[in-house]
Amino acid sequence: MKKIVLFICDGMGDLPHPSLGGKTPLQEASTPHMDELVSRGQGGIMDVIGPGITPGSDTAHLSLLGYDVKAVYTGRGPFEAAGAGIEILEGDVAFRCNFSTISSDGLVLDRRAGRIREGTKEMASALDGLMLEDIEVIFKAGVEHRGALVFRGPGLSASISDVDPHEIDKPVLVSQATTPEGEKTARILNLFVRKSQEILEEHPINIDREARGKKPANIILPRGGGVVPHILSMRERTGMSVAGVAGVTLVRGVCRAAGIELIHVPGATGGRDTDMMGKAEGAVKALQNHDMVLVNIKAPDTAGHDKEPLDKVAIIECIDKAVGRLLDTIPEGTVVALTADHSTPCSVGGHTGDPVPLAIFAEGNRSDMTKQYDEISCSHGGLGRIVGRELMPIMMNMAGRAEKYGA
Amino acid sequence: MKKIVLFICDGMGDLPHPSLGGKTPLQEASTPHMDELVSRGQGGIMDVIGPGITPGSDTAHLSLLGYDVKAVYTGRGPFEAAGAGIEILEGDVAFRCNFSTISSDGLVLDRRAGRIREGTKEMASALDGLMLEDIEVIFKAGVEHRGALVFRGPGLSASISDVDPHEIDKPVLVSQATTPEGEKTARILNLFVRKSQEILEEHPINIDREARGKKPANIILPRGGGVVPHILSMRERTGMSVAGVAGVTLVRGVCRAAGIELIHVPGATGGRDTDMMGKAEGAVKALQNHDMVLVNIKAPDTAGHDKEPLDKVAIIECIDKAVGRLLDTIPEGTVVALTADHSTPCSVGGHTGDPVPLAIFAEGNRSDMTKQYDEISCSHGGLGRIVGRELMPIMMNMAGRAEKYGA
Repeated sequence: MKKIVLFICDGMGDLPHPSLGGKTPLQEASTPHMDELVSRGQGGIMDVIGPGITPGSDTAHLSLLGYDVKAVYTGRGPFEAAGAGIEILEGDVAFRCNFSTISSDGLVLDRRAGRIREGTKEMASALDGLMLEDIEVIFKAGVEHRGALVFRGPGLSASISDVDPHEIDKPVLVSQATTPEGEKTARILNLFVRKSQEILEEHPINIDREARGKKPANIILPRGGGVVPHILSMRERTGMSVAGVAGVTLVRGVCRAAGIELIHVPGATGGRDTDMMGKAEGAVKALQNHDMVLVNIKAPDTAGHDKEPLDKVAIIECIDKAVGRLLDTIPEGTVVALTADHSTPCSVGGHTGDPVPLAIFAEGNRSDMTKQYDEISCSHGGLGRIVGRELMPIMMNMAGRAEKYGA
Repeated sequence: MKKIVLFICDGMGDLPHPSLGGKTPLQEASTPHMDELVSRGQGGIMDVIGPGITPGSDTAHLSLLGYDVKAVYTGRGPFEAAGAGIEILEGDVAFRCNFSTISSDGLVLDRRAGRIREGTKEMASALDGLMLEDIEVIFKAGVEHRGALVFRGPGLSASISDVDPHEIDKPVLVSQATTPEGEKTARILNLFVRKSQEILEEHPINIDREARGKKPANIILPRGGGVVPHILSMRERTGMSVAGVAGVTLVRGVCRAAGIELIHVPGATGGRDTDMMGKAEGAVKALQNHDMVLVNIKAPDTAGHDKEPLDKVAIIECIDKAVGRLLDTIPEGTVVALTADHSTPCSVGGHTGDPVPLAIFAEGNRSDMTKQYDEISCSHGGLGRIVGRELMPIMMNMAGRAEKYGA
């Protein structure tokens, strides 16, 4: 049985851009190693969730890992919480949160508390461990103004409305049950928000911030609550031990929820300065004691959101070198898939449902007539047009890990 | 309405092979008639069950015939029994069996009774027709040491464990119910195994074998029990009368279960010496009074299992001549599909989930740019990448037999 590398360049898929003479960043970039990969293997395109559906990073990664997104995705909350390092359990209700600023008359002044960067850990620990009725509160700070909240206990449901008004100068909303099952959870959520205000308003960090003329992070605004679904681990589903190299909290959360062991790679921050070469090297190293490794590189997505096509070209050329290092150092026969979790076109500045390019290579496997790795060349490739959930079985077959159905 | 020929070359899909200079057997072989077929028609690739799933011959043929495998496949037993000539009925429980040799102290000495070739029919008739409680036993000998067993009567289930230890020098296992529904069937199965031993130990054929120093076939070891599912016949499902030309027991069983009339073709043995030309001629003849004919040619699969790429090339060139004969003699307008039920790569020596090449031709239908019939050329073809279950509706449409959905 062979090993598998799934190399995901976040948001790398794109559209033609005027400032690139009508080419996509992948078409414009010089990518000798990606082209070698697809030339020795096969090309195709992939609708990560389904044709025309715009994936989120969470749903996209679940799909690429072979999960039935419709069955396991209940919202971003559970994966955000797992990414923040909370061990989520089936039945928990999890939320994304912001540290926010509220006025004395109850209006939201800043949903990000002046983009607070310091002290959130201390404030989080003042909320973590609260008991509200018979419900345990687990709260962890994330990057900048972000946090993750988990309720654990009997009778919880995600059938509730949001408290975050999603706009400034509006009052905090009172969560309502959207079905009778949600009544307890709505009550606990409203209680938590009130409690967060009581505790944070008197917190020394906020007193200090106000003294320095900064906005206090004096309330927590949770949103996007979801019940933690029953998710079989990758080992249970595929029999493989899987490692993950990823900097982004949400992608790390998907990995954690799927039982993927997160590998620390020096310099892998998830930012544009990510040490891509280090990620490739970390992946090869992780293959020594894992059957499969997933690598996520965030930078192309950021360039897409920022509408910077030239930047995206430069990032892709940098990733190309990492792909070269990967091809030079993987064990013989390893199945390598190079793709994206979604398109983030620089002309759009956000995710779109355009299919992503896909290349799969494994020594001894079929090689088609695709010679270049980009959205257009791959669309004529021999892998055809597949959906994201089909990628894992296809790779497992090439790795000699497929099970026979029938006799 | 036009007629349909589905020409299935068992296990013909393959991977690049070093001894063929990195080509697949289909790429290496000279196949002027297959190339003509795809040049005049269209090429594509097909995941017979689904992407990356390794098909068995039974599940593959069900899928190619348009059945929902997940709904109709309960195990190999029912199709093996149907292939052995037992008329299976919905609710029967059917098993594959071996004539085996057991020692006086109850250890399995040879699961194939010295690969017994003679006398199994006589021994089978001593078991066929037994009544165990209110359950009727139907037992037929197959090729060599093989047999098929059917239980018929009220309260049967396949929720039972196997009795075949699948290893020598081990005792025969006692079947256990895996759910309460299985209790009666487990009891009947254990009774049958004991009874087979009582009857076969004293059978003249075995007394004679022992006298000649041969291993007696003194016990029947059933395995792979499955409840016969509700399967609509091809006529019920498609309105067509379908004929089948196939030598392999399991494929013949799928045909029987689907209500396909098996046509005897002289020399069609299912072995490598099969008269392929005779099968093509038999298919054309069967079209005279059937709407569709399915042809299975076993030989390429055998070459794949035996890891003989040069042999597979020679077999493919032989099949190519049969395809030529077919094209020369079919009624004008006949829809011809040429494909495989799965890949059996010579580099692997077993089935894999790699997609199979597909060519469809019908006079007056579309013709794409595919010029050669092999795994790679077809992967760039105009039929794209389809799943096996889609083939029947595509062929029926080309034959003018599709029903309108909507107004």
